[in-house]
Amino acid sequence: MSTNHTERKSEMGEDRVVTKVLPGFMELLPADQIAFNRMMDTIRSVYERFGFVPLDTPVIERTEILLAKAGGETEKQIYRFKKGENDLSLRFDLTVPLARYVSEHEKELAFPFRRYHIGKVYRGESPQKGRFREFYQCDIDIIGNEKLSLVNDAEVVSVIYQVFTELGIGSFTIRVNNRKLITGLLQALGIAELTVDVMRIIDKIEKVGCGNAKSMLSDLGISEDSISKIFDFLNISGDTRSILVGLINLNMKNETFEMGLNELREVVSYIETLGVPDECFVVDLSIARGLDYYTGTVYETSLNDYPKLGSICSGGRFDNLAEKYTRRKLPGVGVSIGLTRLFSQLQEVSLIRKERSTLTRVLVVPLSTEGLDTSLQTASALRQNGIQTEVYLEEAKVKTKFAYANKLGIPYVVIIGEEEVASKTVSLKNMTTGEQKRVTIEALVSLAQNQ
Amino acid sequence: MSTNHTERKSEMGEDRVVTKVLPGFMELLPADQIAFNRMMDTIRSVYERFGFVPLDTPVIERTEILLAKAGGETEKQIYRFKKGENDLSLRFDLTVPLARYVSEHEKELAFPFRRYHIGKVYRGESPQKGRFREFYQCDIDIIGNEKLSLVNDAEVVSVIYQVFTELGIGSFTIRVNNRKLITGLLQALGIAELTVDVMRIIDKIEKVGCGNAKSMLSDLGISEDSISKIFDFLNISGDTRSILVGLINLNMKNETFEMGLNELREVVSYIETLGVPDECFVVDLSIARGLDYYTGTVYETSLNDYPKLGSICSGGRFDNLAEKYTRRKLPGVGVSIGLTRLFSQLQEVSLIRKERSTLTRVLVVPLSTEGLDTSLQTASALRQNGIQTEVYLEEAKVKTKFAYANKLGIPYVVIIGEEEVASKTVSLKNMTTGEQKRVTIEALVSLAQNQ
Repeated sequence: MSTNHTERKSEMGEDRVVTKVLPGFMELLPADQIAFNRMMDTIRSVYERFGFVPLDTPVIERTEILLAKAGGETEKQIYRFKKGENDLSLRFDLTVPLARYVSEHEKELAFPFRRYHIGKVYRGESPQKGRFREFYQCDIDIIGNEKLSLVNDAEVVSVIYQVFTELGIGSFTIRVNNRKLITGLLQALGIAELTVDVMRIIDKIEKVGCGNAKSMLSDLGISEDSISKIFDFLNISGDTRSILVGLINLNMKNETFEMGLNELREVVSYIETLGVPDECFVVDLSIARGLDYYTGTVYETSLNDYPKLGSICSGGRFDNLAEKYTRRKLPGVGVSIGLTRLFSQLQEVSLIRKERSTLTRVLVVPLSTEGLDTSLQTASALRQNGIQTEVYLEEAKVKTKFAYANKLGIPYVVIIGEEEVASKTVSLKNMTTGEQKRVTIEALVSLAQNQ
Repeated sequence: MSTNHTERKSEMGEDRVVTKVLPGFMELLPADQIAFNRMMDTIRSVYERFGFVPLDTPVIERTEILLAKAGGETEKQIYRFKKGENDLSLRFDLTVPLARYVSEHEKELAFPFRRYHIGKVYRGESPQKGRFREFYQCDIDIIGNEKLSLVNDAEVVSVIYQVFTELGIGSFTIRVNNRKLITGLLQALGIAELTVDVMRIIDKIEKVGCGNAKSMLSDLGISEDSISKIFDFLNISGDTRSILVGLINLNMKNETFEMGLNELREVVSYIETLGVPDECFVVDLSIARGLDYYTGTVYETSLNDYPKLGSICSGGRFDNLAEKYTRRKLPGVGVSIGLTRLFSQLQEVSLIRKERSTLTRVLVVPLSTEGLDTSLQTASALRQNGIQTEVYLEEAKVKTKFAYANKLGIPYVVIIGEEEVASKTVSLKNMTTGEQKRVTIEALVSLAQNQ
């Protein structure tokens, strides 16, 4: 990096500052920014259709709020600074701010509180491929007051289904599990105190392989027999029905396990009622999300053609959102899309649709100063009718003006010269077909509206 | 503040953390957040209609970038911190990031480069009414490569006109001036070196009054005669034509002044051509924007019924966006709306439309578990047709369910009990009129779409 900077500076011949974006931060050119915003708009539109209200909280929070519940890794990654007497930090997720918000405003909110939040969060991770220090999260959460129906866990799946259907980035699978199953199994095996460690190992199975995972479990002091029971559980596979039958056939006499099984059956049944097609979701007993605070249903989502991208939308059910901030018990369920990372991954596998470098649909080109007034009036008429319009205002050769339209990918150019002014018409050129015709401004407006 | 915190803590009976938002930061309840987002969407939609492309740059920049051009006040207010070896800061405006972006990507961009940027910026000011430490700016800028037509200065006025027309917050006046006029006048008076100081005093006239302003000018060592000439200039008033005639009649033999006059005449003429009504803009020779880096046209915008709010949209023309970062000369013109401040001001004068606390249009209420499946299917059908829909999923009395709809302001409730399930209909209640009727799900969808 520093070598590049030096080169750049010497090439400039003077000591100018480095204008490259910081490593770990995403900055897009217009065409990609337009594609990024389209994805964000789609997500927002689906979230709103499911009755979630928008929320926007400060990027800066008191450090004591952010670190009230967080562990060592978070503390290391956090952007923290003092301003005056205040110990401040940049938020590292949208869940802690939600907990603070709900605690502060609980008397003013109606419960269940359904909010979506699309915003930037910050983690000072060592920069590596696919890891960002500033990234967008697109979260939904449904927060209950003391209790929250299990049907919400199914509804979240319905939201995920709708989002990824509308994003149109290929077929996908929503993986659903319930943490109470593994928790109950480990209780029954008498190793409940190892639950967190075991879940972390389960999360790693795909990466390290079954053999390694087994020896890691063995290293924890878990017996052969128990390890084999854990794998009997994890290996239950097939379609949703078969997995549920497999779980019943384990015949586990443990309250937590049975509760998990009942919850999972109920959630699966509501997912079907909500119209999520069978081919889009599976029960996957290997989903643990060991690092998170979930207590029941958990979700992950993967693209069928790109399993290596990992989970692109994850979440779950939690018992109590804000125990550090309020006495009220606030159970919830939610899910998060890490949009910056997802976008960057989709770029790598060329799944981002190539957008034009502008939203402009019509470029008005005055051929000479005589055409300028009519050009401005034509542009105003188009804009009044909702059509994204620009006028090429610089003095330049006609060729340069058309080159501008081509570089940006503007689909229509309206040419206005002396002849057009005299005849109260404009020349409309379709930049894709090359076709050109004379029309009145009224006809132009109606043509542009119908394109 | 600290007293409140102590009270809160003792009321809680334990040592819980403070959940109140930091002073100087805005945090809204859902109804206001919806109103805020509507304003932002309106601004975005107008910006796009004028052919501006979206841009999004990191909130964190290298401190050397942010302070390359900035003065002492900025340095004091900036949020600055170290992370590893990096000296980082939060951006305090969207213009410096634009300068960096254009310098970095100049080879990939098409010029003139028209971008809008809606994002948060940070200034650690001492908190006072109407001042925010985190606030949204909504900026447009048109950046030319070496040159930029003056017609753009008029087009910016057309954008401001369209934005405030569509925001619907009452009648407004866009004030236009050209800095070259006062610059030229001061040159002619032989006091060019005092230009910045004089402009700052001119900016204060409305606040301090003419008498005080005159003695401040006198304190700078400016002669009676020159002060009276400055006020002759500032006092030219009337409609746009009269002011232009008044300026011509000053008969100033100064190149800068004459250039300013010609530019102003030209800009005014294009503003009219673009269809901005006479009653919405004036030439105001007292607009100086002394603290900014403008070199020609300058703008301010005020609400006619609320002059005390000051300028709610300001900007101007600058000669060179990024001299610190690139050799290329990048003249530009742009304008900024400080949306957080504007929203807070509009709240104070009750100009924010009271929104509902949700975007949900239909609440589906299952009367019992028998109605649940049909409720979920009905909700899916409504959402598939673009209608924002929720299902009340918690077990509760019917009264509680209706209270939820009323608290949020949901306009339609669909009730589904045994009778409805048996007859394959739903009961639709209009919460405004109280009217209730039985309809089929198909009829419900088509009714909801037409509301």
